[in-house]
Amino acid sequence: MPGCGKSSIGRRLAARLGLPFVDADTEIEAAAGLPITEIFTRYGEPHFRDGERRVIARLLAGPPLVLATGGGAFTDARTRAAVARSGAVAVWLRCTLPVLLRRVAGREHRPLFLNRDPREVLERLMTARHPTFAEANVTVDCTDEPPETTTRKVMEALAAHREPARLPVRLGARSYDVLVGQGLLARAGALLAPVLPARRLVVVTDAAVAPLHLPRLLAGLAEAGIAVAATITVPPGEASKCFAELERVVTEALAAGADRRTAVLALGGGVVGDLAGFAAAVALRGLPFIQVPTTLLAQVDSSVGGKTGINLALGKNLVGAFHQPQIVLADTDVLATLPPRELRAGYAEVAKHGLLQGALWSWCEAEGARAVAGDPAALAHAVLESCRLKAGVVAADEREESAEGGRALLNLGHTFGHALEAERGFDGTLLHGEAVAVGLGLAAALSARLGHSSQELPGRVISHLQECGLPARIGDIPGGFSAARLLARMRKDKKVRDGAMRFVLLRGPGDAFTTAEVPAAAVESLLRDEGCGA
Amino acid sequence: MPGCGKSSIGRRLAARLGLPFVDADTEIEAAAGLPITEIFTRYGEPHFRDGERRVIARLLAGPPLVLATGGGAFTDARTRAAVARSGAVAVWLRCTLPVLLRRVAGREHRPLFLNRDPREVLERLMTARHPTFAEANVTVDCTDEPPETTTRKVMEALAAHREPARLPVRLGARSYDVLVGQGLLARAGALLAPVLPARRLVVVTDAAVAPLHLPRLLAGLAEAGIAVAATITVPPGEASKCFAELERVVTEALAAGADRRTAVLALGGGVVGDLAGFAAAVALRGLPFIQVPTTLLAQVDSSVGGKTGINLALGKNLVGAFHQPQIVLADTDVLATLPPRELRAGYAEVAKHGLLQGALWSWCEAEGARAVAGDPAALAHAVLESCRLKAGVVAADEREESAEGGRALLNLGHTFGHALEAERGFDGTLLHGEAVAVGLGLAAALSARLGHSSQELPGRVISHLQECGLPARIGDIPGGFSAARLLARMRKDKKVRDGAMRFVLLRGPGDAFTTAEVPAAAVESLLRDEGCGA
Repeated sequence: MPGCGKSSIGRRLAARLGLPFVDADTEIEAAAGLPITEIFTRYGEPHFRDGERRVIARLLAGPPLVLATGGGAFTDARTRAAVARSGAVAVWLRCTLPVLLRRVAGREHRPLFLNRDPREVLERLMTARHPTFAEANVTVDCTDEPPETTTRKVMEALAAHREPARLPVRLGARSYDVLVGQGLLARAGALLAPVLPARRLVVVTDAAVAPLHLPRLLAGLAEAGIAVAATITVPPGEASKCFAELERVVTEALAAGADRRTAVLALGGGVVGDLAGFAAAVALRGLPFIQVPTTLLAQVDSSVGGKTGINLALGKNLVGAFHQPQIVLADTDVLATLPPRELRAGYAEVAKHGLLQGALWSWCEAEGARAVAGDPAALAHAVLESCRLKAGVVAADEREESAEGGRALLNLGHTFGHALEAERGFDGTLLHGEAVAVGLGLAAALSARLGHSSQELPGRVISHLQECGLPARIGDIPGGFSAARLLARMRKDKKVRDGAMRFVLLRGPGDAFTTAEVPAAAVESLLRDEGCGA
Repeated sequence: MPGCGKSSIGRRLAARLGLPFVDADTEIEAAAGLPITEIFTRYGEPHFRDGERRVIARLLAGPPLVLATGGGAFTDARTRAAVARSGAVAVWLRCTLPVLLRRVAGREHRPLFLNRDPREVLERLMTARHPTFAEANVTVDCTDEPPETTTRKVMEALAAHREPARLPVRLGARSYDVLVGQGLLARAGALLAPVLPARRLVVVTDAAVAPLHLPRLLAGLAEAGIAVAATITVPPGEASKCFAELERVVTEALAAGADRRTAVLALGGGVVGDLAGFAAAVALRGLPFIQVPTTLLAQVDSSVGGKTGINLALGKNLVGAFHQPQIVLADTDVLATLPPRELRAGYAEVAKHGLLQGALWSWCEAEGARAVAGDPAALAHAVLESCRLKAGVVAADEREESAEGGRALLNLGHTFGHALEAERGFDGTLLHGEAVAVGLGLAAALSARLGHSSQELPGRVISHLQECGLPARIGDIPGGFSAARLLARMRKDKKVRDGAMRFVLLRGPGDAFTTAEVPAAAVESLLRDEGCGA
C-alpha cells in the first residue's frame, strides 16, 4: 500500500541480508524510458501490467535480491503466479489505515490522491487489495515504529517462515498439489486462492470438527476475501455417508447460490471428505473440490486420490465417483486434537504405505511409535511420506484399472479388514484403521504361508503394530469371528472380478503384488488357526 | 457349425453373385503347408487362431469374394472384430440339431467326433458358439431343403439386409457409436456384444415402456448370450428422476450381483436414460452404460452426449454426471408406438438442431411435417441428422466448458423453455418439447428484436412449428404467464455464470451464438408484447 514503507524497509532488509535492493517501478521506468504515470496515460493499465510482469519475472529469474513492488503488481493474478513460480518469498507490510494516513500526508500532489480524500482512496485500495495481499508468503504488521524495528520483525518472520511441503499428484489436466505443513488452516485463503475459479465456496464439515477447526479456517478464508456461501454441518460418523445426507448437502449448497465456479471444501475426516467430494462430483455435474483433512486417516489416505462416495445398506463405498480435488491442505497442527485411538487407527494406513514402499517401513519400525504418541515432527513425516507414496500410485492408475498391481495395491490388508469391519457392523467397536491393522497382520501371515515372503515377516508386522497399540491379530479384537462368514464377506468384496477373490500379498516390505490365485482353503485354515470359529 | 453347408451354399452363392469362392481352411493349410489337424496338434489352438485371423484379414482386404470359414473362426473375438472392420457381411447358416445330426452322419472318423457321441458334441458346440454366431449381420434358418433353396434364402436375406447407420461420437478413449436404424432391438445382443466388457447387464426401464419393447429387447440379448442380471422398472414420468429411485436402481443392480464389468442398459425415454445413466455413473464409481432410447426426444437429443442426472426440489437436472454410453441404439421402429403429442414434442428438438445446423432446417421446413405425422423414412432422417449435429457439438466441447458457443448452443430455446416448464410445475400440461418449441419462437423473436437476425426469421420459425402442431408463441399455451416470474426463473438458470443470464441467439438458420449481452428490459418487453402479465 502507498506509505507501507516498501523502499525504506526493503533497503534495510537488503543491507542486513547482504543482497542488492531493487525497486520494480524504477526498473520499469528505465526499461520503458518513460515515467510510470506516462506509461499509464499513454498505453493504459493492461499494457503497463504486462510490462511490469515481464520486468518482475526477469528480476526474479536473476541472482537473489530484495525487490520492492507497488501493490498493484501483486493484485495482478498473472504476476502473483509468476512470483510464486519463481520461488520468491513475498512479504506483505501490513499497516492499519491510521498509520498509512499519517505516512501519506504530504503526497496529495501524487496522481493517486490528486483532488481526492486520502482516507477514501486508501480505504478503497485496502478493500480491493488486501484479499490478494493475503496470498503473500509472509505478513508483517507494521505500526508507527522506527524502520529498524519493522526490519527486524521482517527478519524474524522470514526466519520463522516455512512453506508447506508441496507434493504434486500428476494426473494431466486433473493434476493438483497436496500441501503438508503446520498452520495451514489460518493461511487457507492464501493457499486456496490460486487454484479456485472464483473466490467463493461452500464448506462441508461435521458437528465434531466444526467447533475445533472451523473458526480458524473461516478466518483464513476471509483474509483472502473468499466468500463462504454456506457452511453445511453433517452429523459425525459413518452413517452420514448416505443418500439422505448427500441430497441435503447438494440442496443446501445450491440453495445458497453455488454455481459452477463455486468450490466445495471438505473440512473433516474420511466421512466428510467422501461425502462432500461426492456432492461436489454430482452437484451441477461437477463443482471444484477442496480437501482439508482433519484426521490422520484422512491426511495419509482418503483425502488424496479422488475416491469419493457413500454407503448402501449392501456395503460401504458402493456408490461414488472419482473426483479429484483442486488441492489438499493437510495441516498437521489439527492432529493434536485427535483422540489417541483415532490417531493410532490412522497410523495403520501409514504402516500399510510403509509395507508397500519399503524405506517407509523401516522408518515406521524405528520412529512410528513417536508418531502414534503425537510427536509433531514424526506425524509430519508420516503424512508427507504417505502422501508421496499414494500420489505416485494414483498417478499411475487413477481409476484402478490396472489388471495387476496399480491402485489395487493400496488395498493391502483391506480384503481382510473390510470383512472384519462388516462383521462388526460398523458400530464403532472396531475402527477402520484397527481392522486394517489386523488385515495387515493377516496379509503378512498369508504371504508367508503361501511361500511368497520370509517366515519372519508376519512377526515383524504384527509386533510393530502391537507396539503402536493397534490390534494386529484376530485374537486382539474382543469377541469372536466365524471363518465361514468372513470368507463369505470377502467373496462379496467390491474388488471381486468375474467371481475371483483378489488379495494383495507381500514378498517383503516394498514388494507387494495383487493376485487372484489364493486358494480359499488357505485363507480358511489361516483364519481357523488365528482362532476363528467355523 | 459342422454340417451347416458353408461350402455347398458358399459355392452356389458365389456363382449367383459372380464372385470367387474361397474356403478359409484351405487357404490356411496352403499358407502353413500343413493340414489343420496337424497345426492344431503341433502348435496348439491359440497359434492356429492367430494364423487363421491373419489369413481371413488378408482375404477380406482383397477384391470382393464369398468366404467360408469354420465356426471356430467367428467365435474368436479378434477375428470377429477384424471381419466387422473389413465391412464384410457375415452370414450365419443356422440349422437345428436334428438337421445337423443327419448331415454329419458318416463323419464319425473326423477328429471332432472321434469316439464321441455326435449329439453331445454338437449340443456342446451350439451352446458355446450360437451366442457369438448371433453377431453375424445376417442369419438364415436352414432346413432339410435343397441347397438351391437355401442359397435363394441367403440371396433374399442379403437383399433385405440393411446395416444401421453408424455415427461416431469422437471423444478419445470415450468414443462411441450411435446406431440408427430399424429392427435394432431384436438384434440388440449382436450389436452390443462387441462393446461390452462382459456378456451381462442390468436393464432399467419404465412401466410404460416395458410391455411395449422389453420382450423384444430381452430376446435380442438372449440370442447373443447376454445375461440379464436384473430388470429394474421405475414409474414413468419426471418424478422418477429423484434420489429415492436412484438409490433403488443402484441397490437392485448391485444386489443382483452387478460388478465393474456389468453394464447398465437404459430402455426408455429421457427420464429412464438420465436416471439409469446416472446410476451407471455412480454405482461402484462407474459401470459401462448403454442407451436404447424409445422416444423421439431421447433418440434425437438426450441419449447422445453423456449428460445424466436427476432433479432436486430446487430445479431440474441439478445433480448428475457426464457419463458417456458405450453405444446408443436408436431403433426407429419403436417410434410407431409413441403417442402423437410426444412425437410432436420430440420434434421440437429436431427443429432446434435444424436451426443450429442450417441445411437440416431447410429439410424441416420441407419434410418435417411428414416426420411429425409418423412417416418412418422422415423420422429416420430426423434422428440421423439430429444425432450427427449433436455428435459434432459434443465432440468439440464434451463438458460444456467453452467460453463461447460449444455445447451451450444446444440450449437454443431452452432458457425460455426451462422457465415456462418450471412455471407450469412439470405437471404434464406443458411437455419439455412443447416448452422448447415456444422457446425457439421466443429466441428467434429476441434475435430479430436485437437486430441479430432478419425480421422474417421469427415468422418462419413460428409458422413451421405451428404447422407441425406445436405451440410456438406464449399465447399458444393455455393459461397466462407473468413476465417478472419468467425473468426470475431465467436468472436462476443453471447456465447463469457469475450472475449474468446467458442466451443462445440466431443470426439465421445455421448461425447461432451464445451471449450474456441481452438487456433484461429487452426480454421483459418481448414477454409483455407476447401477452405475459407483469
